Amino acid sequence: MLFGRIDHIGVAVEDLDGAVKLYGERFDMREQHRETVESQGVEAVLLEIGEGHVELLRPLSEDTPVGKFIAKRGAGLHHVAYQTDDIDRTLGAVREAGLELIDQEPRIGIRGSRVAFLHPRSTGGVLTELVEPVH
Amino acid sequence: MLFGRIDHIGVAVEDLDGAVKLYGERFDMREQHRETVESQGVEAVLLEIGEGHVELLRPLSEDTPVGKFIAKRGAGLHHVAYQTDDIDRTLGAVREAGLELIDQEPRIGIRGSRVAFLHPRSTGGVLTELVEPVH
Repeated sequence: MLFGRIDHIGVAVEDLDGAVKLYGERFDMREQHRETVESQGVEAVLLEIGEGHVELLRPLSEDTPVGKFIAKRGAGLHHVAYQTDDIDRTLGAVREAGLELIDQEPRIGIRGSRVAFLHPRSTGGVLTELVEPVH
Repeated sequence: MLFGRIDHIGVAVEDLDGAVKLYGERFDMREQHRETVESQGVEAVLLEIGEGHVELLRPLSEDTPVGKFIAKRGAGLHHVAYQTDDIDRTLGAVREAGLELIDQEPRIGIRGSRVAFLHPRSTGGVLTELVEPVH
Protein backbone atom coordinates (compact mmCIF):
# COMPACT_ATOMS: atom_id res chain seq x y z
CA MET A 1 0.00 0.00 0.00
CA LEU A 2 1.31 3.42 -0.91
CA PHE A 3 -0.89 5.15 1.65
CA GLY A 4 -1.64 4.29 5.25
CA ARG A 5 -4.90 6.17 5.61
CA ILE A 6 -6.83 9.30 4.81
CA ASP A 7 -4.83 11.87 6.77
CA HIS A 8 -7.27 14.74 6.38
CA ILE A 9 -9.74 16.50 4.19
CA GLY A 10 -9.13 20.16 3.45
CA VAL A 11 -12.11 22.51 3.62
CA ALA A 12 -11.97 26.02 2.17
CA VAL A 13 -13.71 28.53 4.44
CA GLU A 14 -14.29 32.26 4.36
CA ASP A 15 -14.79 32.70 8.10
CA LEU A 16 -12.31 30.58 10.05
CA ASP A 17 -13.62 31.31 13.53
CA GLY A 18 -17.17 30.72 12.34
CA ALA A 19 -16.15 27.37 10.90
CA VAL A 20 -14.29 26.38 14.09
CA LYS A 21 -17.44 27.25 16.05
CA LEU A 22 -19.65 25.26 13.66
CA TYR A 23 -17.51 22.12 13.85
CA GLY A 24 -16.96 22.48 17.58
CA GLU A 25 -20.55 23.12 18.59
CA ARG A 26 -22.39 21.03 16.06
CA PHE A 27 -20.02 18.12 15.52
CA ASP A 28 -17.96 18.17 18.72
CA MET A 29 -14.76 18.33 16.67
CA ARG A 30 -12.20 20.41 18.53
CA GLU A 31 -9.43 22.71 17.42
CA GLN A 32 -6.14 20.90 17.85
CA HIS A 33 -3.70 23.18 16.07
CA ARG A 34 -3.71 26.55 14.31
CA GLU A 35 -1.01 27.83 12.01
CA THR A 36 -0.46 30.34 9.26
CA VAL A 37 1.17 28.46 6.40
CA GLU A 38 2.58 31.26 4.27
CA SER A 39 3.84 28.91 1.57
CA GLN A 40 0.24 27.80 0.94
CA GLY A 41 -1.29 31.22 1.52
CA VAL A 42 -3.61 30.06 4.29
CA GLU A 43 -4.42 30.27 7.93
CA ALA A 44 -5.24 26.68 8.82
CA VAL A 45 -6.91 24.94 11.74
CA LEU A 46 -6.72 21.20 12.37
CA LEU A 47 -9.76 19.61 13.98
CA GLU A 48 -9.46 16.20 15.60
CA ILE A 49 -11.33 13.21 14.29
CA GLY A 50 -10.10 9.71 15.07
CA GLU A 51 -6.54 9.37 13.86
CA GLY A 52 -7.19 11.94 11.13
CA HIS A 53 -8.16 15.57 10.80
CA VAL A 54 -10.37 18.07 9.14
CA GLU A 55 -8.20 20.97 8.00
CA LEU A 56 -10.02 24.28 7.72
CA LEU A 57 -8.32 26.67 5.29
CA ARG A 58 -8.86 30.42 5.22
CA PRO A 59 -7.07 32.14 2.34
CA LEU A 60 -4.72 34.95 3.36
CA SER A 61 -5.77 36.86 0.24
CA GLU A 62 -7.88 36.46 -2.89
CA ASP A 63 -4.73 35.91 -4.90
CA THR A 64 -3.92 32.51 -3.37
CA PRO A 65 -4.94 29.03 -4.54
CA VAL A 66 -7.60 28.72 -1.86
CA GLY A 67 -8.77 32.30 -2.46
CA LYS A 68 -9.21 31.57 -6.15
CA PHE A 69 -10.96 28.29 -5.36
CA ILE A 70 -13.53 30.07 -3.20
CA ALA A 71 -14.04 32.80 -5.80
CA LYS A 72 -14.74 30.18 -8.44
CA ARG A 73 -16.58 27.43 -6.56
CA GLY A 74 -17.48 28.79 -3.16
CA ALA A 75 -16.49 27.45 0.25
CA GLY A 76 -16.43 23.68 0.62
CA LEU A 77 -14.34 20.55 0.09
CA HIS A 78 -10.94 21.55 -1.28
CA HIS A 79 -8.64 18.53 -1.18
CA VAL A 80 -7.96 15.12 0.30
CA ALA A 81 -4.66 14.13 1.85
CA TYR A 82 -3.29 10.59 2.13
CA GLN A 83 -0.69 9.68 4.68
CA THR A 84 2.55 8.00 3.74
CA ASP A 85 5.53 7.16 5.93
CA ASP A 86 7.98 7.81 3.09
CA ILE A 87 6.93 10.71 0.90
CA ASP A 88 10.08 10.59 -1.24
CA ARG A 89 9.35 7.02 -2.25
CA THR A 90 5.63 7.69 -2.75
CA LEU A 91 6.19 10.84 -4.79
CA GLY A 92 8.68 8.93 -6.91
CA ALA A 93 6.15 6.15 -7.47
CA VAL A 94 3.35 8.47 -8.59
CA ARG A 95 5.76 10.48 -10.76
CA GLU A 96 6.89 7.25 -12.40
CA ALA A 97 3.25 6.29 -12.91
CA GLY A 98 2.90 9.44 -15.00
CA LEU A 99 0.82 11.61 -12.66
CA GLU A 100 1.18 15.35 -12.98
CA LEU A 101 2.75 16.87 -9.87
CA ILE A 102 2.19 20.35 -8.51
CA ASP A 103 5.17 19.90 -6.20
CA GLN A 104 8.14 18.22 -7.84
CA GLU A 105 9.72 17.81 -4.42
CA PRO A 106 8.15 17.58 -0.96
CA ARG A 107 7.87 20.84 0.95
CA ILE A 108 7.14 21.69 4.55
CA GLY A 109 3.45 21.82 5.41
CA ILE A 110 1.49 22.29 8.61
CA ARG A 111 3.11 21.13 11.89
CA GLY A 112 6.38 20.42 10.16
CA SER A 113 4.94 17.65 7.99
CA ARG A 114 6.37 17.04 4.53
CA VAL A 115 3.74 17.41 1.83
CA ALA A 116 3.30 17.38 -1.93
CA PHE A 117 0.26 18.06 -4.09
CA LEU A 118 -0.73 16.21 -7.25
CA HIS A 119 -2.56 18.03 -10.00
CA PRO A 120 -6.32 17.38 -10.17
CA ARG A 121 -6.01 17.09 -13.96
CA SER A 122 -4.38 13.70 -13.51
CA THR A 123 -6.47 12.50 -10.56
CA GLY A 124 -10.03 12.74 -11.87
CA GLY A 125 -10.58 16.30 -10.66
CA VAL A 126 -9.53 15.59 -7.07
CA LEU A 127 -6.81 17.82 -5.65
CA THR A 128 -4.72 15.19 -3.85
CA GLU A 129 -2.05 15.77 -1.22
CA LEU A 130 0.55 13.35 0.08
CA VAL A 131 1.56 13.86 3.71
CA GLU A 132 4.43 12.45 5.69
CA PRO A 133 3.83 13.51 9.30
CA VAL A 134 6.71 14.50 11.52
CA HIS A 135 8.05 11.30 13.03
CA MET B 1 -17.06 12.69 20.28
CA LEU B 2 -19.95 12.39 17.88
CA PHE B 3 -17.81 10.79 15.20
CA GLY B 4 -15.23 8.04 15.38
CA ARG B 5 -13.33 8.82 12.21
CA ILE B 6 -13.52 9.87 8.60
CA ASP B 7 -15.29 6.86 7.10
CA HIS B 8 -14.81 7.82 3.48
CA ILE B 9 -14.65 10.54 0.92
CA GLY B 10 -17.03 10.37 -1.99
CA VAL B 11 -15.64 11.13 -5.44
CA ALA B 12 -17.91 11.82 -8.43
CA VAL B 13 -16.61 10.16 -11.59
CA GLU B 14 -17.80 9.88 -15.17
CA ASP B 15 -15.91 6.70 -16.02
CA LEU B 16 -16.04 4.24 -13.14
CA ASP B 17 -13.76 1.59 -14.59
CA GLY B 18 -11.27 4.25 -15.62
CA ALA B 19 -11.25 5.62 -12.07
CA VAL B 20 -10.85 2.15 -10.54
CA LYS B 21 -7.89 1.63 -12.86
CA LEU B 22 -6.38 5.02 -11.95
CA TYR B 23 -6.61 4.42 -8.21
CA GLY B 24 -5.50 0.80 -8.51
CA GLU B 25 -2.51 1.34 -10.77
CA ARG B 26 -1.33 4.73 -9.59
CA PHE B 27 -2.19 4.65 -5.88
CA ASP B 28 -2.34 0.90 -5.20
CA MET B 29 -5.86 1.33 -3.75
CA ARG B 30 -7.89 -1.76 -4.56
CA GLU B 31 -11.57 -2.32 -5.29
CA GLN B 32 -13.15 -3.83 -2.22
CA HIS B 33 -16.84 -3.65 -3.02
CA ARG B 34 -19.08 -2.62 -5.92
CA GLU B 35 -22.78 -1.94 -5.68
CA THR B 36 -25.55 -0.11 -7.49
CA VAL B 37 -27.29 2.02 -4.89
CA GLU B 38 -30.57 2.87 -6.61
CA SER B 39 -31.77 5.10 -3.79
CA GLN B 40 -28.77 7.36 -4.40
CA GLY B 41 -28.78 6.98 -8.17
CA VAL B 42 -25.21 5.71 -8.35
CA GLU B 43 -23.02 2.77 -9.13
CA ALA B 44 -20.42 2.89 -6.37
CA VAL B 45 -17.05 1.29 -5.77
CA LEU B 46 -15.30 1.24 -2.40
CA LEU B 47 -11.51 1.37 -2.46
CA GLU B 48 -9.56 0.33 0.61
CA ILE B 49 -7.40 2.78 2.49
CA GLY B 50 -6.47 2.10 6.10
CA GLU B 51 -9.66 1.72 8.12
CA GLY B 52 -11.50 4.00 5.70
CA HIS B 53 -12.46 4.15 2.05
CA VAL B 54 -12.57 6.18 -1.07
CA GLU B 55 -16.03 5.81 -2.59
CA LEU B 56 -16.16 6.31 -6.34
CA LEU B 57 -19.61 7.37 -7.54
CA ARG B 58 -20.85 7.09 -11.12
CA PRO B 59 -24.28 8.60 -11.64
CA LEU B 60 -26.88 6.26 -13.14
CA SER B 61 -28.30 9.19 -15.13
CA GLU B 62 -27.89 12.92 -15.52
CA ASP B 63 -31.02 13.46 -13.48
CA THR B 64 -29.50 12.26 -10.20
CA PRO B 65 -27.75 14.27 -7.48
CA VAL B 66 -24.31 13.10 -8.60
CA GLY B 67 -25.22 13.57 -12.26
CA LYS B 68 -26.23 17.16 -11.57
CA PHE B 69 -23.09 17.71 -9.51
CA ILE B 70 -20.87 16.63 -12.40
CA ALA B 71 -22.83 18.73 -14.90
CA LYS B 72 -22.36 21.79 -12.70
CA ARG B 73 -18.87 21.32 -11.23
CA GLY B 74 -17.22 18.48 -13.07
CA ALA B 75 -15.88 15.25 -11.63
CA GLY B 76 -14.14 15.48 -8.27
CA LEU B 77 -14.64 15.54 -4.51
CA HIS B 78 -18.34 15.14 -3.77
CA HIS B 79 -18.82 14.52 -0.04
CA VAL B 80 -17.19 13.45 3.20
CA ALA B 81 -18.64 10.81 5.49
CA TYR B 82 -18.05 10.54 9.22
CA GLN B 83 -18.53 7.29 11.05
CA THR B 84 -20.77 6.98 14.08
CA ASP B 85 -21.74 3.90 16.04
CA ASP B 86 -25.22 5.26 16.74
CA ILE B 87 -26.65 7.20 13.84
CA ASP B 88 -30.02 7.76 15.50
CA ARG B 89 -28.37 9.54 18.41
CA THR B 90 -25.98 11.47 16.16
CA LEU B 91 -28.70 12.54 13.75
CA GLY B 92 -30.80 13.66 16.72
CA ALA B 93 -27.88 15.68 18.07
CA VAL B 94 -27.19 17.51 14.81
CA ARG B 95 -30.92 18.10 14.25
CA GLU B 96 -31.16 19.57 17.74
CA ALA B 97 -28.14 21.75 16.97
CA GLY B 98 -30.16 23.26 14.15
CA LEU B 99 -28.43 21.74 11.14
CA GLU B 100 -30.46 21.29 8.00
CA LEU B 101 -30.93 17.62 7.15
CA ILE B 102 -31.38 16.10 3.71
CA ASP B 103 -32.46 12.83 5.33
CA GLN B 104 -34.79 13.26 8.27
CA GLU B 105 -34.28 9.61 9.14
CA PRO B 106 -31.39 7.25 8.40
CA ARG B 107 -31.71 5.17 5.26
CA ILE B 108 -29.89 2.14 3.94
CA GLY B 109 -26.66 2.95 2.10
CA ILE B 110 -23.89 0.88 0.60
CA ARG B 111 -23.17 -2.56 2.14
CA GLY B 112 -26.23 -2.31 4.37
CA SER B 113 -24.86 0.66 6.31
CA ARG B 114 -27.28 3.22 7.72
CA VAL B 115 -26.61 6.69 6.38
CA ALA B 116 -27.98 10.23 6.45
CA PHE B 117 -26.86 13.35 4.59
CA LEU B 118 -26.73 16.88 5.99
CA HIS B 119 -27.36 19.83 3.72
CA PRO B 120 -24.21 21.70 2.60
CA ARG B 121 -26.06 24.98 3.23
CA SER B 122 -25.65 24.40 6.95
CA THR B 123 -22.16 22.88 6.88
CA GLY B 124 -20.11 25.53 5.13
CA GLY B 125 -20.65 24.13 1.65
CA VAL B 126 -19.53 20.60 2.53
CA LEU B 127 -21.96 17.81 1.70
CA THR B 128 -21.64 15.73 4.87
CA GLU B 129 -22.78 12.16 5.41
CA LEU B 130 -23.17 10.26 8.66
CA VAL B 131 -22.54 6.51 8.42
CA GLU B 132 -23.27 3.73 10.85
CA PRO B 133 -21.61 0.63 9.41
CA VAL B 134 -23.29 -2.74 9.72
CA HIS B 135 -22.25 -4.15 13.07
